[in-house]
Amino acid sequence: MQAQTQVTVTDDEPEDFYRGLVKNRLIIPGGVDGAFGRGAQFEKVLEAFNALISRISSDDDAEFCTFPPVIDRRIIEQVHYMDSFPDLCGAVCSFMGKEAQARELSERIHAGQPWGDALEMTQVVMNPAACYPLYPTLTGVIPDGGRLVTMLNWVFRHEPSREPTRMQSFRVREFVRIGAMDDVIAWRDMWLARGVALLTSLGLDAIPDVASDPFFGRGGKMMSVNQKEQKLKYEVLVPVNSVEKPTAVCSFNFHQQHFGATFAILTPNGDAAHTACVGFGVERVALALLKTHGLEPDKWPARVRSCLWP
Amino acid sequence: MQAQTQVTVTDDEPEDFYRGLVKNRLIIPGGVDGAFGRGAQFEKVLEAFNALISRISSDDDAEFCTFPPVIDRRIIEQVHYMDSFPDLCGAVCSFMGKEAQARELSERIHAGQPWGDALEMTQVVMNPAACYPLYPTLTGVIPDGGRLVTMLNWVFRHEPSREPTRMQSFRVREFVRIGAMDDVIAWRDMWLARGVALLTSLGLDAIPDVASDPFFGRGGKMMSVNQKEQKLKYEVLVPVNSVEKPTAVCSFNFHQQHFGATFAILTPNGDAAHTACVGFGVERVALALLKTHGLEPDKWPARVRSCLWP
Repeated sequence: MQAQTQVTVTDDEPEDFYRGLVKNRLIIPGGVDGAFGRGAQFEKVLEAFNALISRISSDDDAEFCTFPPVIDRRIIEQVHYMDSFPDLCGAVCSFMGKEAQARELSERIHAGQPWGDALEMTQVVMNPAACYPLYPTLTGVIPDGGRLVTMLNWVFRHEPSREPTRMQSFRVREFVRIGAMDDVIAWRDMWLARGVALLTSLGLDAIPDVASDPFFGRGGKMMSVNQKEQKLKYEVLVPVNSVEKPTAVCSFNFHQQHFGATFAILTPNGDAAHTACVGFGVERVALALLKTHGLEPDKWPARVRSCLWP
Repeated sequence: MQAQTQVTVTDDEPEDFYRGLVKNRLIIPGGVDGAFGRGAQFEKVLEAFNALISRISSDDDAEFCTFPPVIDRRIIEQVHYMDSFPDLCGAVCSFMGKEAQARELSERIHAGQPWGDALEMTQVVMNPAACYPLYPTLTGVIPDGGRLVTMLNWVFRHEPSREPTRMQSFRVREFVRIGAMDDVIAWRDMWLARGVALLTSLGLDAIPDVASDPFFGRGGKMMSVNQKEQKLKYEVLVPVNSVEKPTAVCSFNFHQQHFGATFAILTPNGDAAHTACVGFGVERVALALLKTHGLEPDKWPARVRSCLWP
């Protein structure tokens, strides 16, 4: 493997960055945009960042759990996901026919014909947001002071792109706070400051900003405006492809009582609980580190390495 | 949490076992069978077993990588997966219409009507076997002596079941050997002995056996018979739900030149390479340990704990 010079974030050439990632076997291209394999060094960085998050939050005493990449289809029906992001969804469909239909299906595939209409929806969909599978498990009265849960889950968004930070399938290290409104907002604000400090300590130019989700269609534009006006979503942005258009590497969402009311998650006084979540796109953080400090983690600045590998 | 007595593997009551797992927050039930959340203690066991595999195989010098839970749809088309296991597949479908169709979709979902026919197949499918995404990346001539790659990937099988070891979505720690026939078979045989020894060292009653895949339909029965006659698949079985019907916790597949020929993976002399894989169902191993040694890992026998947490 060739020696690599330090890459500075001053260009706007995602294709060059991608080629470098592939050349250094950080990314292993698959046949589909945004669904590539991750090499050993990439995973080492990702796991180190995930462990760093665990260390800095260890006093918070969050409960850890893991959910699979697929979730109950009823969740996205109940939270009205398909009203807002139908184009990003991934419903898992399977073959449920008998032998004759299976033979026909096989012949169609061998002939190179489309075969989606031979399938039916299963009970599961790709998980589009790390925290979704948690809420239905919280139904009932939460303890005084609320709850705090953390997860590292794979999520899916149907938005194929050659831009390496725009993935279809990626992992999110998530924290979810459930409780009274003031507690939840204070917790979100604490993490916003902590997230910026954490990323800055790794030598990244982290900038917080009010943000909005990519709601579908014309009606969606108004929803984005409302979301920004109410400051329901913040992001921390870091330059990866360019300084002018930095990339969101973590997001902070205040859901008000949306999930509390939908899944009957109640505070001790009987109100629907408020919830907020903080999610780090751990692949994006790894890519931001690789773009900022170069494609060879062994040669990163000592202060960055000592944060990640103490 | 109540003290838990040791569970011995002499009953045939998967429902009781499942209830114990839920009560001890090892499993967090979702709304769909076989797609449950995993609690912190469960993950701790799973990660310890995965790390143990890495330790015992560290001298093998396998290249590590990770693939996402979704893969290029063309892979399952090219390897003829749908001929053999159409009922287990999970094709990822999404909405690709305009605003008017999105409104209609939304109305149908709100009215509780089926909505699968509003979707189209994407370029990706759920990965049904940990090693599948690797093969297309190996096209070309392999080095003398072949290659060895290891992965921990999520896989999907559409077979909902209340039996806790029969999951729709689970992780497989996989090793893939690519090379000349004799080298590949010798490697498979080495891992068969090593796998039995590894599981036995953890206090599990591990038994190797010739096995076959659940090929679909009547034609599939003959394929299973052929597979057994040619001894292309072995499994190591451990009692979980019963002693009489032990559960496969790892499998060893010799693919002959199937993947080598399909993806033009060539040995230096120009032949299609032979391949074999070894996969540990890491959730199943965790469940076997919990069934054998009890639902509280802190109270497991010292010799088992020292293997997992040295």
